[in-house]
Amino acid sequence: MLCNLPEYIAEKIPKFGYLISIFFQQGTHRETRVTRYVDPDRLREVIDMNLRKEPVSQEALLNLVRDTLKYSVKTGHPYFVNQLFSSLDPYALAGAWVTDSLNPSVYTYEVSPVLTLMEEAVLKEMRSIVGWSDGDGIFAPGGSIANGYAINCARFHKIPDVKTKGLHGLPRMVLFTSEDAHYSIKKLAAFEGLGSDNVVAVRTDARGKMDVLHLRELVKRAKDEGALPFMVSATSGTTVLGAYDPLEEIHDVCEQEGMWLHVDAAWGGGALVSKKYRHLLKGIEKADSVTWNPHKMLAAPQQCSTLLTKHKTILAECHSASAQYLFQKDKFYDTSFDTGDKHIQCGRRADVYKFWLMWKAKGTDGLEKHVNRLFENAEYFTEQIRHRPGFKLVLEEPECTNVTFWYIPPSLRGREDDPDYHRKLHRIAPLIKERMTREGTMLMTYQPINGLPNFFRLVLQNSSLTTDDMDFIVSEFERLGRNL
Amino acid sequence: MLCNLPEYIAEKIPKFGYLISIFFQQGTHRETRVTRYVDPDRLREVIDMNLRKEPVSQEALLNLVRDTLKYSVKTGHPYFVNQLFSSLDPYALAGAWVTDSLNPSVYTYEVSPVLTLMEEAVLKEMRSIVGWSDGDGIFAPGGSIANGYAINCARFHKIPDVKTKGLHGLPRMVLFTSEDAHYSIKKLAAFEGLGSDNVVAVRTDARGKMDVLHLRELVKRAKDEGALPFMVSATSGTTVLGAYDPLEEIHDVCEQEGMWLHVDAAWGGGALVSKKYRHLLKGIEKADSVTWNPHKMLAAPQQCSTLLTKHKTILAECHSASAQYLFQKDKFYDTSFDTGDKHIQCGRRADVYKFWLMWKAKGTDGLEKHVNRLFENAEYFTEQIRHRPGFKLVLEEPECTNVTFWYIPPSLRGREDDPDYHRKLHRIAPLIKERMTREGTMLMTYQPINGLPNFFRLVLQNSSLTTDDMDFIVSEFERLGRNL
Repeated sequence: MLCNLPEYIAEKIPKFGYLISIFFQQGTHRETRVTRYVDPDRLREVIDMNLRKEPVSQEALLNLVRDTLKYSVKTGHPYFVNQLFSSLDPYALAGAWVTDSLNPSVYTYEVSPVLTLMEEAVLKEMRSIVGWSDGDGIFAPGGSIANGYAINCARFHKIPDVKTKGLHGLPRMVLFTSEDAHYSIKKLAAFEGLGSDNVVAVRTDARGKMDVLHLRELVKRAKDEGALPFMVSATSGTTVLGAYDPLEEIHDVCEQEGMWLHVDAAWGGGALVSKKYRHLLKGIEKADSVTWNPHKMLAAPQQCSTLLTKHKTILAECHSASAQYLFQKDKFYDTSFDTGDKHIQCGRRADVYKFWLMWKAKGTDGLEKHVNRLFENAEYFTEQIRHRPGFKLVLEEPECTNVTFWYIPPSLRGREDDPDYHRKLHRIAPLIKERMTREGTMLMTYQPINGLPNFFRLVLQNSSLTTDDMDFIVSEFERLGRNL
Repeated sequence: MLCNLPEYIAEKIPKFGYLISIFFQQGTHRETRVTRYVDPDRLREVIDMNLRKEPVSQEALLNLVRDTLKYSVKTGHPYFVNQLFSSLDPYALAGAWVTDSLNPSVYTYEVSPVLTLMEEAVLKEMRSIVGWSDGDGIFAPGGSIANGYAINCARFHKIPDVKTKGLHGLPRMVLFTSEDAHYSIKKLAAFEGLGSDNVVAVRTDARGKMDVLHLRELVKRAKDEGALPFMVSATSGTTVLGAYDPLEEIHDVCEQEGMWLHVDAAWGGGALVSKKYRHLLKGIEKADSVTWNPHKMLAAPQQCSTLLTKHKTILAECHSASAQYLFQKDKFYDTSFDTGDKHIQCGRRADVYKFWLMWKAKGTDGLEKHVNRLFENAEYFTEQIRHRPGFKLVLEEPECTNVTFWYIPPSLRGREDDPDYHRKLHRIAPLIKERMTREGTMLMTYQPINGLPNFFRLVLQNSSLTTDDMDFIVSEFERLGRNL
């Protein structure tokens, strides 16, 4: 129990390191399985999950690690295209290991000098890419909580007393976001006491973008009802369709109505580093705050999320509690470097280092090449399936690296007018998903939205994929779905 | 940029690994410095923090890693006794590296089968240690947010409509916690729209424990004012003094008044694994929810925090948003294993594995020995300074592994009755802290609370410390403060 750390590391870590390197060789090669699905009951038999009074032997421990690696999903595999994160950057991985070894918490300069300055540098550079020469920012434990920070800043900006007095006695505060926005807006609005009903869903158009006329209508209706509109959360890269809301038009509404403009660019913000694609976020510099997750399109490891704002002091004013045991003002150094009080977290993991190291290793140029490759692959995939029998695009012209489509098995082709066509098509995606999961050749998610039957979403963040991989994914659908 | 992962790992990781092993040898040995303090401007000269268009060379990258390790605080050093976390368990470190390599996000069984079941096992065992045979739990990104979850559950329990309708139109909801409770209660109450003024501070007694008579008075006063009391957050192990609130008496008040009893045992919860010390949390099984951070007293790495509750369904009911793109109900497996919708996070780091692996390696017996050692060291330290010239205990009988004390330099001894004694004593701690930080021999925090002049807090979570180390810390104060 009280073992000597350096000796243990010298003896044992190489064994762990060996296992991990095997895992990589298996987990990132195309020939291997993305997943080795077993049911929960069976998995509990394979890996003894339970904690006991007695320690297990060192050998048993290594076996547990081996089985953990074996039965976990290989999110670094080229055909893990299931979520808005994937791949595993080796520089970033090295950075993550260094972070673990430092075991830091970033709240005061005194205990995290290097990481504090790295956060400052990364956040400043990200703000500069957004288009701001000043402002502030923080790392958040995920984009959902980053959006929650934005909501809190927005209402504090409207009514500063809300921090001390709460919402009690105030008018009903409402915010607006599109029906395709991420669910975290509703979730965090509920958590923050606003109520999920006070998140008003704005219609999207045929391309999945916020309908600004409808937004104007809804703002007027809310005011007529006596509510207080305080914020619009626009989305740059919606979760499913990858749509980019029209930021400049939305900004005009916000300006007229005195609302905070937040842009949830958690997913699509990566396009900002590309000269070719940053037009998708035209007007983002007019926003008050931006959520941008480097762990998504820029392929930093889970988890690396930021909230950026052009307002220099609001994060501190809105969130500070000035705890005397941690943020003493009689320290010998400049305590403006004790940044922890801007956060709702106290102890906080250093998510910056893995991203900083990766960015250093690649340069912004490297990030740009990475992003361009993702978009090119998505464009290639779109063209491959556009006219191919059995495939139908949900969006004819995807904007982001999401490509959404139905796979229509032979038995359903030409039957679009059958009364139960939609019902039958809706069942196809879960069946294909089960097959791909059990075989482990690929993982791609499906979903129904806006009343459409279940469809698949290819989503690309791994720039080591080639056009051959796009071809493979197409043919794999044909193989998995041919006899449905 | 698009490098081959396994080859990179094979070539480069050993170099990183070598640096890290050197770091350990330096960073956990008593002879080395805990910190190598330099001012921010100088540190920016040593480490080029800025991100640029062009990548840096591989050699430059290794130098950056080397300097990161060199100038970061060694939180695994025996004399890093500055925060409520310290040390670095080698099993847990190996677990953290495995987690990084998996790069997972825990929300669905489909993408995190192993880690989902591990979370289930760890949370179940922790609930069992609390004293519950049923219930639910989640991992949270820190104790502050875990406390925030508790607040949200408590108010939802009182008024379920709050989730959809918000606080607008409701009576003023108030919660109670002691004046020595962690600042996250106020911070999260503000974030959640309740307002920090509606966190009512209950007096503490001479031992730092919540005064339950005062609690009763304050609840009555709140009701008389028309407010709605809905929760008490008791603390098991306060941040500074390490006091344990009287849970059974507080529970009686909660039961009578229909309030949710939350216990913030983020810090002091570790005592639950010790037969000798778990009496400190007597009555905890009567609570509705408990925050317990294994990354504190149990010495798991940053960050590993949990919220546990005896209510089986409330976390899901209170937080779910049922996003169809992620939590599809037509999957082929039992979707009750898709646990992500209980959280306010969407993507979420797997904080479980490092703790699970460490627990497996040590057994609950090992955790108990670890905790007992911490308390024994704290007791030894307390006795060493109790009658020693120049030391004065803040609490005569500390309960937890916090030992709080003033160091009184020779020039101030015997001058307790001088009119400016307190003012002078208040300035001593920052001076000693500056000296220890610049020399790097130790890091221990100081603070003023409840009108007392600045005092130091020794806090122990590293069970590799011995009574010799306690003696060293005493003598180090005498050395650093002798000529003040």
